[in-house]
Amino acid sequence: MQKNVTIADIARETGVSTATVSYILNGKKSISSKTKEKVFAAIEKLDYVPSINARSLSTRDSFHIGVFIPQTEPGGSLMFENMFYGEILSAIEYEARTQGYHIFISGRGVDESCFYLARRRNLDGIIAIGVYQDEGFLSIEDSGVPLVLVDSYCNESPHNAVRIDDHYGGYLAARFLLDRGHRNIAFFSGRQRDNGVMQKRFEGYRQALAEQGAPFRQEFVFSQNVDFDDGVMLARKLIGTHIPVSAVSAAADVLAIGAAKAFSDAGLRIPQDISIIGFDDLRITQYITPGLTTVRQEIALKGKKAVEMLIENIRQPASQKRTEILPLTVVERESVRTLEGSNQEGL
Amino acid sequence: MQKNVTIADIARETGVSTATVSYILNGKKSISSKTKEKVFAAIEKLDYVPSINARSLSTRDSFHIGVFIPQTEPGGSLMFENMFYGEILSAIEYEARTQGYHIFISGRGVDESCFYLARRRNLDGIIAIGVYQDEGFLSIEDSGVPLVLVDSYCNESPHNAVRIDDHYGGYLAARFLLDRGHRNIAFFSGRQRDNGVMQKRFEGYRQALAEQGAPFRQEFVFSQNVDFDDGVMLARKLIGTHIPVSAVSAAADVLAIGAAKAFSDAGLRIPQDISIIGFDDLRITQYITPGLTTVRQEIALKGKKAVEMLIENIRQPASQKRTEILPLTVVERESVRTLEGSNQEGL
Repeated sequence: MQKNVTIADIARETGVSTATVSYILNGKKSISSKTKEKVFAAIEKLDYVPSINARSLSTRDSFHIGVFIPQTEPGGSLMFENMFYGEILSAIEYEARTQGYHIFISGRGVDESCFYLARRRNLDGIIAIGVYQDEGFLSIEDSGVPLVLVDSYCNESPHNAVRIDDHYGGYLAARFLLDRGHRNIAFFSGRQRDNGVMQKRFEGYRQALAEQGAPFRQEFVFSQNVDFDDGVMLARKLIGTHIPVSAVSAAADVLAIGAAKAFSDAGLRIPQDISIIGFDDLRITQYITPGLTTVRQEIALKGKKAVEMLIENIRQPASQKRTEILPLTVVERESVRTLEGSNQEGL
Repeated sequence: MQKNVTIADIARETGVSTATVSYILNGKKSISSKTKEKVFAAIEKLDYVPSINARSLSTRDSFHIGVFIPQTEPGGSLMFENMFYGEILSAIEYEARTQGYHIFISGRGVDESCFYLARRRNLDGIIAIGVYQDEGFLSIEDSGVPLVLVDSYCNESPHNAVRIDDHYGGYLAARFLLDRGHRNIAFFSGRQRDNGVMQKRFEGYRQALAEQGAPFRQEFVFSQNVDFDDGVMLARKLIGTHIPVSAVSAAADVLAIGAAKAFSDAGLRIPQDISIIGFDDLRITQYITPGLTTVRQEIALKGKKAVEMLIENIRQPASQKRTEILPLTVVERESVRTLEGSNQEGL
């Protein structure tokens, strides 16, 4: 290794400032192609290799952040079937890259605390998506590794967090259906865990029903994992029960999409025979037929905020922890119809 | 830092072998929970932090591999809107994790060669998806960094590569339509670049038409980027031209999905008024209505093979470079109809 070649050597060789060389290597500022060409030629000639690993051992900063993504099951693959994760990861990577950081992705080992991983990998900080309080994941905070939680409700100690108001989201969805005359509304969700987003959305659904005097029945509630196949399965279960519902509130778009497919395969038309509202506003929901009415969360903004907050935390480790809550709205497309009069029809 | 605490200290403290401690830290072998508990307790007690960065400076191996994903445009976000990338990344991460490797993801800077990035990040190897020969990306091979190309046609020098036979895929799709009586077939694709997958698929389409004596017209061919919106746009363009086609071969499922939406919005029924065949067999294609008939490629297998090949290359740097070509089949769902008799209808 040419340990003695430094940025200053490159600058001298090319006649530009060390700052310019640094900008080019970090990609942080727009520099003319001509200058870039000269600098890269000098780098080649002098065989300069900027080693972040070597540097980070002395300065601590690795410009490397870890993103922890939930798995389908312990030891399973990452949950990319739910396009929410692709969309948020895309936003995280883009914002991080813009700010000069690179991304490390991983599932969460069942035994391995992220604390160890962060130190082994010399990560500057961590963004963890969908962590549950009971997972033991949060021992990480003791390590002092900067951390931003996305979509987690962890009350025991203060964390930097970005999330939505999931209770309100569940309420919004059910309220949208109630306002259009639906009274018998099924609820499809992922597994409900204490203080998890699915539980919060479910509580919002219950609150809306109660407020409007609509019946709540335990048989209206169907929970499984969050993927297309489970949406199909829950819809088939609902059809099998012969419980008369006129609408489904699905706590994730992928469940709604799977359910819509199963209803359609069973000869039920959406929204004429059954209405569906989803949750997330994944990009795909506007390209299916009929377009899915859904609770929109700002997925890209969530990713961007998480990175901003993390970098702030990296730069100012002592700053106050805070939670940012992003807005929700209903996007109306074609999957929900208004029931006429007071005669609700059902399946 | 407790520099003097080693794996041997942990082993002594817990009464297990150093190999067992190492297995637990690498997650490479199944060890009983009881042993794990003891070992993690000792790690905690002795404040042992296995630093991969520190280790990798001496042994070279970082157990860290980089995955380079195409961007929507130079400097833009990663192409996760095309779910192909989420699906293949999921498979890559899973296989890598199983083999004790972690994943670094990045777009490709326009100026920054991956060669620099790999050395800066001390990556053991790189998987690069969708690289074009004219991009200059392949200067990386000179660096000796183990590399596997996915979906690239780079003939100048030998590389490890995993791909499909894109020409054959384009042929299969068009042939499927021709065999069902379609003669006037539009082709929707991403931008066609020299030796790129889209160009190969296009050539396959042309070959099938020529073989069957079906007309080829330049006005049948529509190219744009590969996302939903471009599928919508291409379909609207096609409708606007009033060229009588009875079917569309879309060289990517996301284009097919966008096109199906636009046709449907324009009052055209699929497949009664127009047939569509896609390419990829993304998970979503079986959950839309009508289900999309498409050329299936084994996306998860592609990711797995890429990791296997890369790790082989990391372990045996001198071994012969090879290309692995994965199989293609047509999955028939409901988006293509058979034309009766010889009277072809069109838009």
